[in-house]
Amino acid sequence: METEALLPPMPGQRLARGVCRALRQLDFVTVEELVPTPGLRVDVMALGPKGEIWIIECKSSRADYMTDQKWRGYLEWCDRFFWAVDGDFPIPLLPEASGVIIADAYDAAILRMGPDTPLAPSRRKVMLQKFARHAALRLQGLRDPNFNAFSLV
Amino acid sequence: METEALLPPMPGQRLARGVCRALRQLDFVTVEELVPTPGLRVDVMALGPKGEIWIIECKSSRADYMTDQKWRGYLEWCDRFFWAVDGDFPIPLLPEASGVIIADAYDAAILRMGPDTPLAPSRRKVMLQKFARHAALRLQGLRDPNFNAFSLV
Repeated sequence: METEALLPPMPGQRLARGVCRALRQLDFVTVEELVPTPGLRVDVMALGPKGEIWIIECKSSRADYMTDQKWRGYLEWCDRFFWAVDGDFPIPLLPEASGVIIADAYDAAILRMGPDTPLAPSRRKVMLQKFARHAALRLQGLRDPNFNAFSLV
Repeated sequence: METEALLPPMPGQRLARGVCRALRQLDFVTVEELVPTPGLRVDVMALGPKGEIWIIECKSSRADYMTDQKWRGYLEWCDRFFWAVDGDFPIPLLPEASGVIIADAYDAAILRMGPDTPLAPSRRKVMLQKFARHAALRLQGLRDPNFNAFSLV
């Protein structure tokens, strides 16, 4: 049985956990906190069974959303963009042209698909490589914690 | 300080750990036990900074090597193929045309490069996708252990 102590400490991380669980049911795999380019760090990057690349930004509150100045910068790094918010979030605040996911720490549901804006093949290849490196580095950090796998990231 | 208790239990896994550490120093990222196609499971698959895909088979003893009937099947899934063995292994036993890495649980060194046989672009893309999915799934399994991320693999 899961206890509260096992939940990620930050509200945004809890939403991210639920998002990652739900996306897995759609046969997507996910990583958190990937940096597509210096200065940007996405909450969740998802890779679909056909190579789809989605970015999901998790907003735990209206204030969290209103202070995000960077989100438009994420659009060029994915095929689809989504906000993930909890059930209390004022959805009309979100731009109509972006996807919406309702999430909690345990699961999530897509309320509205983000528009499909396919990446150019060269950028898709770069993003797939970044995703693979990010996931493998963090995995090595967990399976061999005495080795500083991040020293050369 | 690292203790013996933290080492992987199997001799081949210990070699794999040293191989993964050494490859990291060359800016490669790695996963273990990836399945490129049903019936094949590679010990280490490595992804290089320029997208290079290497496979490394870890052999803990002469007997372990002599009973491997499948290794030629790995060649078509990588740009370079290597054996990883410990310092006591009789190197002349290994095919002259394959790469050799000398490893222990802590580090490794490339003794002989495997020949460069570049993958076709379509297969490279497939392998990069498999690598990314494998790494992300196992990472999710570790960061969210209460969720059965492998149910749909």
